[in-house]
Amino acid sequence: MNSIQSLHIEAGIRALRAFVFEEGVLRILDQRALPGRTTWLSCSSVEEVAQAIECLAVRGAPAIGGAAALGMLLALDAEHIDDVKSRCAAADERLRKTRPTAVNLFVALDRVRAAWLPPAADAASLRARVVAAARGYVEDDRSACDALAAHGRDALNALIDDDSALMTICHTGALATCGGGTALHVLGALHAARPATHAVALETRPLLQGARLTAWECQQRGIPVTLITDSMAAFYMQQHKVGVAVVGADRIARNGDTANKVGTFALALACAHHGVPLFVAAPTTTIDVQCDSGAHIVIEQRHADEVRAFAGSASATPSTPVWNPSFDVTPAHLIRGYITERGVLSSSMLSKL
Amino acid sequence: MNSIQSLHIEAGIRALRAFVFEEGVLRILDQRALPGRTTWLSCSSVEEVAQAIECLAVRGAPAIGGAAALGMLLALDAEHIDDVKSRCAAADERLRKTRPTAVNLFVALDRVRAAWLPPAADAASLRARVVAAARGYVEDDRSACDALAAHGRDALNALIDDDSALMTICHTGALATCGGGTALHVLGALHAARPATHAVALETRPLLQGARLTAWECQQRGIPVTLITDSMAAFYMQQHKVGVAVVGADRIARNGDTANKVGTFALALACAHHGVPLFVAAPTTTIDVQCDSGAHIVIEQRHADEVRAFAGSASATPSTPVWNPSFDVTPAHLIRGYITERGVLSSSMLSKL
Repeated sequence: MNSIQSLHIEAGIRALRAFVFEEGVLRILDQRALPGRTTWLSCSSVEEVAQAIECLAVRGAPAIGGAAALGMLLALDAEHIDDVKSRCAAADERLRKTRPTAVNLFVALDRVRAAWLPPAADAASLRARVVAAARGYVEDDRSACDALAAHGRDALNALIDDDSALMTICHTGALATCGGGTALHVLGALHAARPATHAVALETRPLLQGARLTAWECQQRGIPVTLITDSMAAFYMQQHKVGVAVVGADRIARNGDTANKVGTFALALACAHHGVPLFVAAPTTTIDVQCDSGAHIVIEQRHADEVRAFAGSASATPSTPVWNPSFDVTPAHLIRGYITERGVLSSSMLSKL
Repeated sequence: MNSIQSLHIEAGIRALRAFVFEEGVLRILDQRALPGRTTWLSCSSVEEVAQAIECLAVRGAPAIGGAAALGMLLALDAEHIDDVKSRCAAADERLRKTRPTAVNLFVALDRVRAAWLPPAADAASLRARVVAAARGYVEDDRSACDALAAHGRDALNALIDDDSALMTICHTGALATCGGGTALHVLGALHAARPATHAVALETRPLLQGARLTAWECQQRGIPVTLITDSMAAFYMQQHKVGVAVVGADRIARNGDTANKVGTFALALACAHHGVPLFVAAPTTTIDVQCDSGAHIVIEQRHADEVRAFAGSASATPSTPVWNPSFDVTPAHLIRGYITERGVLSSSMLSKL
């Protein structure tokens, strides 16, 4: 197992890392405690990784994929090749059950499965293949982040003014990916090109990733940011000059319908009303070519207490009935384009990938 | 002062009362503590009433008017008529500075001023006039609530199905008025006529009046309710049958543009996209015929901490810049009609009132 013990694979940029694999352990930054506390979970078993994904200690579709891929390395600790394979199969099955909507999870696990499923000469070579596959997912996602940010900057630069507001929802920065981020990485590249632009972050109820993570990460990255509630986005556009809105994605159907954090659809309607172009930024691993349209995307329902409370303080009585979808589906006609590592695509181009 | 000591004037219906004037004191239910605690503030001075309005212990445009009108009774405690008048003038000036957007506040104070400003034979007759004016505002608002609920029920009944969802934002129930409420009173009347309908309450960030007050008051009144975040309204309409949305108003301009709790404009855009008719329910005291359009409505900006936290639980760091308008302006073309005590009006009828 020395090869696993000596591995060092890390996500993110600078001090913004969602997870680090080192000394045979997957250390996951507990994003639930941010920005107040910096706490790392040390996962030495697949089960611990699965629970960290389920409880949202690590979240963001590309980061979930990366954590799951590296989590598979914790299944390699056996001498005989058959034992390695059976442990991998069990780990794969467990990790696939963690969260249903983010397609990157399944893309990452498929890539790792292609390493452990076929015949191998011995356990060592099987392990080496799995390590290479997991590392490959993380490195490819990092490269995709940088590539899509550059494509987004070049394409969106022509649509904004020097002092435009750049709006986003949820959190799509370094902590949500294996690299610099998706939508927030695009905003960072745009801000670098146009220093008078500034970000507007929707707080993103119920779990407040926009307030807790995006506003904080913008400040860490030197991107000026204004925080608003989700309910203020439309009025903000009525009162201010918003150049563009860029959001992430958890799953993009072949026709361009996009599942993303709940509130994205409402933001898209506000954009359409005000003539603000809305872009989805995501690696092509987020595109599910098997999925015809948004109607076929499974939307995760989460616990009612997330809505009945705010950051631990109850807002409604415990008996209040709640509807709490984690994501919504924005129809393709409300989306101007898809910023990927392969360029900015129209919805009609997605099915040709 | 015996006449004031013996007065008993109360707002609301059943156990849902925003304030009660009794034994010479204006007792105000502290709505900030609901639904967790039932706390009453005993205001024996105009300053205490002004602060209760400013800190949102009492809120809701018609209730603010009622609390201010009855607060004026606390300025009557002087022997000489000149002293009563000067105390009334100071009280009037103070109360007008509490909150800028709700026009009912100024309507109520104008009505009471018409009682204390003109000459009077003596202090006792002046006091009697002021008491009658304040009581008149409260009683007229209560009557307006019942009348507008009946008009709304009759008009909207034809637009909904037996099992339609009835959506609303913020809190417009008994605690927001001197009677049974505005928009929520309409939903109550619709539910009474169609028992299979149910309310959908938007939680209404940042102060969560929808979660804390509407969801709670619906349960108190026997109206089935589902609580969602503001960001879910558009997706809820995509996924469910919403018959109608009814909202309150803090100020309605002559052209029909309506200032109401921030988030109303976004809800109106979601309604327009899904073909859900949106109605504003408010007494005609909320219509400001002096105001040409929404562009002239002063929008109150509130403290950044309201967005950075809730009930003491922080979501963002204290240095995070925030934009926090208390209200937004929904353009008249997104509003199907105005449910008032004088019937359901179109925007073109407002200027003829």
